[in-house]
Amino acid sequence: MQTITTVAELRRTLAKARSADKRVGFAPTMGYLHDGHLALVAASRAQCDVTVVSIFVNPTQFGPNEDLSTYPRDFLRDEKLCRDAGVAILFAPDAQEVYPTQFETFVDPGELAKPLCGAFRPGHFRGVATVVCKLFNMVQPDVVFFGQKDFQQCAVVRRMTNDLNLPIEIVTVPTVREPDGLAMSSRNRYLSEEERRRALAISRGLFAAADEFRSGERNVEKLVAIASRHLKTVDRLQYLELVDGDTLKTADSPLRRPAVLCVAAYVGSTRLIDNVILALPTP
Amino acid sequence: MQTITTVAELRRTLAKARSADKRVGFAPTMGYLHDGHLALVAASRAQCDVTVVSIFVNPTQFGPNEDLSTYPRDFLRDEKLCRDAGVAILFAPDAQEVYPTQFETFVDPGELAKPLCGAFRPGHFRGVATVVCKLFNMVQPDVVFFGQKDFQQCAVVRRMTNDLNLPIEIVTVPTVREPDGLAMSSRNRYLSEEERRRALAISRGLFAAADEFRSGERNVEKLVAIASRHLKTVDRLQYLELVDGDTLKTADSPLRRPAVLCVAAYVGSTRLIDNVILALPTP
Repeated sequence: MQTITTVAELRRTLAKARSADKRVGFAPTMGYLHDGHLALVAASRAQCDVTVVSIFVNPTQFGPNEDLSTYPRDFLRDEKLCRDAGVAILFAPDAQEVYPTQFETFVDPGELAKPLCGAFRPGHFRGVATVVCKLFNMVQPDVVFFGQKDFQQCAVVRRMTNDLNLPIEIVTVPTVREPDGLAMSSRNRYLSEEERRRALAISRGLFAAADEFRSGERNVEKLVAIASRHLKTVDRLQYLELVDGDTLKTADSPLRRPAVLCVAAYVGSTRLIDNVILALPTP
Repeated sequence: MQTITTVAELRRTLAKARSADKRVGFAPTMGYLHDGHLALVAASRAQCDVTVVSIFVNPTQFGPNEDLSTYPRDFLRDEKLCRDAGVAILFAPDAQEVYPTQFETFVDPGELAKPLCGAFRPGHFRGVATVVCKLFNMVQPDVVFFGQKDFQQCAVVRRMTNDLNLPIEIVTVPTVREPDGLAMSSRNRYLSEEERRRALAISRGLFAAADEFRSGERNVEKLVAIASRHLKTVDRLQYLELVDGDTLKTADSPLRRPAVLCVAAYVGSTRLIDNVILALPTP
């Protein structure tokens, strides 16, 4: 595995792979890797000849009062995890390499960036769309892998990729969970033992609603109410919404199209997100 | 020459050229081609193996009261000019191909888009940056050619290309002029004979200032005043500004760095722009 920190060296290295007609897979991350990230690597290795992982804690997607400075970092551990997972290139630029002093052009997503996290984190998806567009152009992969836990991010990135005609395929990899159901997240390390227990309410609420859905419940209000009962033990519920899987707008009741039940909640001072897809059985 | 109207067919056609390691040159245009456009084609043919020209009157760069609907069009004439000039691929998508119904992601330029035309055409450079980014991703050229007449457009596109890490070289080709000095523009066809005569004031003003600059004048106010005298015969002067060649902010007096004298003026109901670069002699 090569660890690379500059765009110029990344391009030189990948030019060789490309001229040998290798299929390049890419998983952009903010580091502090967990099994969710490693599932992206595994998916890439299954489909591609060369797997690139980037580690970059992107400042433009954090709000002024968010956790940019405290976001967990452990580069040596990440590097070992990548090497062991069969990553070919680990790209780890610093902030100046990604955002030189004169930088001023942003990628501005549209309606998909407005509800859910977009309503609570103004500018977040603008930062995401911008850095993802930049990373896509640096790596020029054939396929990119994102985790479903960040469902809205997947939707925004997919739309950005289509809207800007980037010749890249986007693959969403199912959320990886702890044995008890908690969605893997680098931010889980912020949780105390007691908070960790209470954080379970999130996945339990989602699973309970998904169970009812599988049993035939199609009423949006009822499905949300089932999840809501579990979520009473979180410290602050930011949103709990059942949205259309394509538009991310509140799903029409009764459900007739694929929908996603999305939640963002604080446990202690840690903000966690999670979701389940409610896909209708094919007729 | 192949005329292509869909992104899918464009990609298929260019994939062959790319796998044969051909250098691809690209000149994006809004059609109604003149010798300025053909100079872009000539510059591309001199440097590249395959020259692509696009013709697309981009709706997102026109304001609600601007000339989108009346913008001059003559596709058959353009097609013949391209064929005769040695263009390999003429890409002429329709609006639905470039902006499908769900389109919503824009590229938002920064400070460079604010002065000059940016101040009078709100959203113009956002539309330009967006369509150029899209066209760059559709064509994936090695080099792109723009005319210097649209100096601010060149600056915005160059910055966008750097900021979004597009692996593309941008070349600015000097403005082509009519024998009497008028900068070539598709919009010149809007001018009546009498307006055409009065439009000459623009290039005369710029040339007079450039002459004084070459004679040693470095005072910004004086150089602007010289051009201004000529510009009394236009119907409405939108701006006449001497700006720094890199930042597009008002140049410091006396001039010590490359600067550009830029003008936008109405003659009748036609808005014309032009500029001259005031480059300091290398010491």
